[in-house]
Amino acid sequence: MTGTVEARVSRGLRDLLPDQMLARQWMIDTIRSVYELYGFVPLDTPAIEYLDVLLGSEAGAEAQQSIFTVQNPEKEALGLRFDLSVPLARVVAQYRDLPRPFRRYQVSPVWRADKPGPGRFREFMQFDLDSVGVESEVADTEIIAGMCDTLSALQVGSYLVRFSSRGILNVLLVYGGIPAERGKDVFRVLDKLEKVGLEKVRLELTTGYVDSSGDPIPGLGLESRQVDRIERFLQIRSGDRREVVAQLRDLFAGVDGAEREVSMTERISNHLYALGYGEDRVSLDLSVARGLAYYTGPVFEAILLDAPQFGSVFGGGRYDDLVLRFLGEKVPATGASIGVDRLFAALIDLKRAGQQKSTAKVLVVSMDPSLQDDYIAMTWELRRAGIPTELYLGAARGPGKQLKYADHWGIPIALLYGSNEKERGVVTLKDMELGRQRAQALEDRREWLEERPGQREVPRSELVSTVREMLLHQVGEQGR
Amino acid sequence: MTGTVEARVSRGLRDLLPDQMLARQWMIDTIRSVYELYGFVPLDTPAIEYLDVLLGSEAGAEAQQSIFTVQNPEKEALGLRFDLSVPLARVVAQYRDLPRPFRRYQVSPVWRADKPGPGRFREFMQFDLDSVGVESEVADTEIIAGMCDTLSALQVGSYLVRFSSRGILNVLLVYGGIPAERGKDVFRVLDKLEKVGLEKVRLELTTGYVDSSGDPIPGLGLESRQVDRIERFLQIRSGDRREVVAQLRDLFAGVDGAEREVSMTERISNHLYALGYGEDRVSLDLSVARGLAYYTGPVFEAILLDAPQFGSVFGGGRYDDLVLRFLGEKVPATGASIGVDRLFAALIDLKRAGQQKSTAKVLVVSMDPSLQDDYIAMTWELRRAGIPTELYLGAARGPGKQLKYADHWGIPIALLYGSNEKERGVVTLKDMELGRQRAQALEDRREWLEERPGQREVPRSELVSTVREMLLHQVGEQGR
Repeated sequence: MTGTVEARVSRGLRDLLPDQMLARQWMIDTIRSVYELYGFVPLDTPAIEYLDVLLGSEAGAEAQQSIFTVQNPEKEALGLRFDLSVPLARVVAQYRDLPRPFRRYQVSPVWRADKPGPGRFREFMQFDLDSVGVESEVADTEIIAGMCDTLSALQVGSYLVRFSSRGILNVLLVYGGIPAERGKDVFRVLDKLEKVGLEKVRLELTTGYVDSSGDPIPGLGLESRQVDRIERFLQIRSGDRREVVAQLRDLFAGVDGAEREVSMTERISNHLYALGYGEDRVSLDLSVARGLAYYTGPVFEAILLDAPQFGSVFGGGRYDDLVLRFLGEKVPATGASIGVDRLFAALIDLKRAGQQKSTAKVLVVSMDPSLQDDYIAMTWELRRAGIPTELYLGAARGPGKQLKYADHWGIPIALLYGSNEKERGVVTLKDMELGRQRAQALEDRREWLEERPGQREVPRSELVSTVREMLLHQVGEQGR
Repeated sequence: MTGTVEARVSRGLRDLLPDQMLARQWMIDTIRSVYELYGFVPLDTPAIEYLDVLLGSEAGAEAQQSIFTVQNPEKEALGLRFDLSVPLARVVAQYRDLPRPFRRYQVSPVWRADKPGPGRFREFMQFDLDSVGVESEVADTEIIAGMCDTLSALQVGSYLVRFSSRGILNVLLVYGGIPAERGKDVFRVLDKLEKVGLEKVRLELTTGYVDSSGDPIPGLGLESRQVDRIERFLQIRSGDRREVVAQLRDLFAGVDGAEREVSMTERISNHLYALGYGEDRVSLDLSVARGLAYYTGPVFEAILLDAPQFGSVFGGGRYDDLVLRFLGEKVPATGASIGVDRLFAALIDLKRAGQQKSTAKVLVVSMDPSLQDDYIAMTWELRRAGIPTELYLGAARGPGKQLKYADHWGIPIALLYGSNEKERGVVTLKDMELGRQRAQALEDRREWLEERPGQREVPRSELVSTVREMLLHQVGEQGR
């Protein structure tokens, strides 16, 4: 079996090489640390689930299309999970003595056999957090606050968490005289407001129109009296959260169930004010509807103002049908899902991540085989001082190729030590980045040899302290 | 679709509930931190691979049996990875410009459709580390040293890393006058030494025997002159590493290729001595053969002396056929694999892990709805001081049930605050564990009410500092 298999992966799948993995790991660790501070606990579930668990008993072949089915020796009907909500629901239904509230996070890959495209993969990482068994709007509040803390910790620049409430949209139906069963269609159209503008939303709610590519967009056939009321609602979008609440209260005055929904939204807004999450980070935006049918209360999403092209990187809301499929029982819950890969792409784009290629901070260059014991001793001395260090063990003999290797992996410091250094009781430390900058500035090889750019010689006994100092200097200059 | 699907998972699969996940995560983070200090870099690959990548072009249906096959829309021949070595090989073959040495770790689940049993799962986590493109025995040395550092960091108690070398076993064949092609069979028998004893090994090497259940164990038919020499080799097992090396050198004096192998083993041993890894942690044990056929040089494994029943928790060695399947080229490499689940089971057994059930250190009890703003403020005050805190948001009203909830999740401190406390500007902090101990010691309810075991009242302004102090006290008393 020599050389006959082509090394490749199937469409929509990919490897994460070390620079990408380091960035993603940092990202996941950061999100984890925020929600662990909030007291969320981790859960893990198998990648493989029964198909009826994944799809519900009445699901058709249509829903199955995006599931990777799996074959086990017992020939059971199995598939790879396509989200983390279904496994959560199964766990809540299966372990009846799990105390509630159950506030868990899970960070795991999910699989969808959809058509792959740029930035669309068939295996991708999801980070979900949910509070199961809670009615209080404080649970929604803490998911929004956690979103803010997470995005701040990831240093994504400016961001905005927008929230609204399905409950308020349901009141809008009452106010507009629109039957509840038409809600799903209406919300789907409202969700397009940001993208297509008010005029087209109006047309789609009423008569429909033909879009620029000539495709007919059918209308919902609402009356203009109904659409006028929706428009009045959509106009309450500017101003701070207090103002939006006040206008909502005015508009919905006397409408059945309105006060309950408006005041719950107001409470969330007030909790957030009290905790210091102001208008610059959290807005009450009535155009947020979130497509999924199952939301029942507050809904929220986050966008990066410095990278809006990535869309919503974080979103969720309140729902109560979690375990319906298994237990036929409604359980109040609220949660959010972080698009790890989308956020990851945004962080790379913003150069907040992806700069680090290796874990090692020092490469000990192996220049002279007779000094190997010294190299080993220095390597472990640095490691034991907590400084990630690699001893070059490859095939290259000269220091030139080994320095190139340090460059390849982005290792910031190289340690050079030959018999000359040994005699004099010193080590040479080379700042790779500084060396590169100076080398470009220098005129010729003679000058280079004289200056030895970025290099410094220190007593052997000062190895660890000097490396520490050099690394401290670099932290300020580099991204992760 | 109400209540019709049973919440369950297929055979050999399992969920990791929060207490288990916290322990496993701590374990994985600890191993990661050791090898990142050594400069290993992370890699991630898709769970789904082409079947020919997984099995090689000539593999038969037999090998396929333990693979979960996967169906994608394009109907390609795909399966879930069964180890992390094959994906590493594919990556090395696929990304030709990846600089070498390539020293990567990967921690990911793998799937095997074998017969499940107690402690044997069909989906399990593996932690692999490999140095690809290195000939130097220092690479083997650092994998052994890292094993020691990892097991020390995990506080597993006493452990022993045993190492030997396939090269030395090959010399044994020359010394014993045994053809090289019989090596595989001979090593397989030697691997049983620990389990069945010298007498049965001797019989299996020669005439064979009938075991206690009446099954015939066929013999390899070696001559007694050959077996005598193997026995002489196996007797070199006591004593320290220096002594074993000296005896080996004596025994193999003049045998072709012996000096090269013995001195490489000696160098590893000497590096380890120099770095402080003495006989108490690393032994040169010639009975270590490691079953897999592909090892070519040093081989190693680790056992926990306080939990020997778990067998080898960590093992690996040097090999050179990594990318043979893809490129038809030999590449020197050495690596090891950690049985995360086995090590995890051992840590639970040793009570070094699994004690922690929640991330939260404080539960803010919600006693009086009119004080909710205070509860929210105190919760975030603690969180912002870096203390993981949960505000109780469930359905229970009275403090009794909420304290029981803290108990369920093992949250060590409960914060109690009612209008009485508010008036006096204090908060009550309850040490849950101390409370339980004292409550058991107290005679009756009256006494309990008087003493309020484990509770202390402190000024509101001292909330954070007091919680910090209480947590510091607890660290010494509890396992993770």
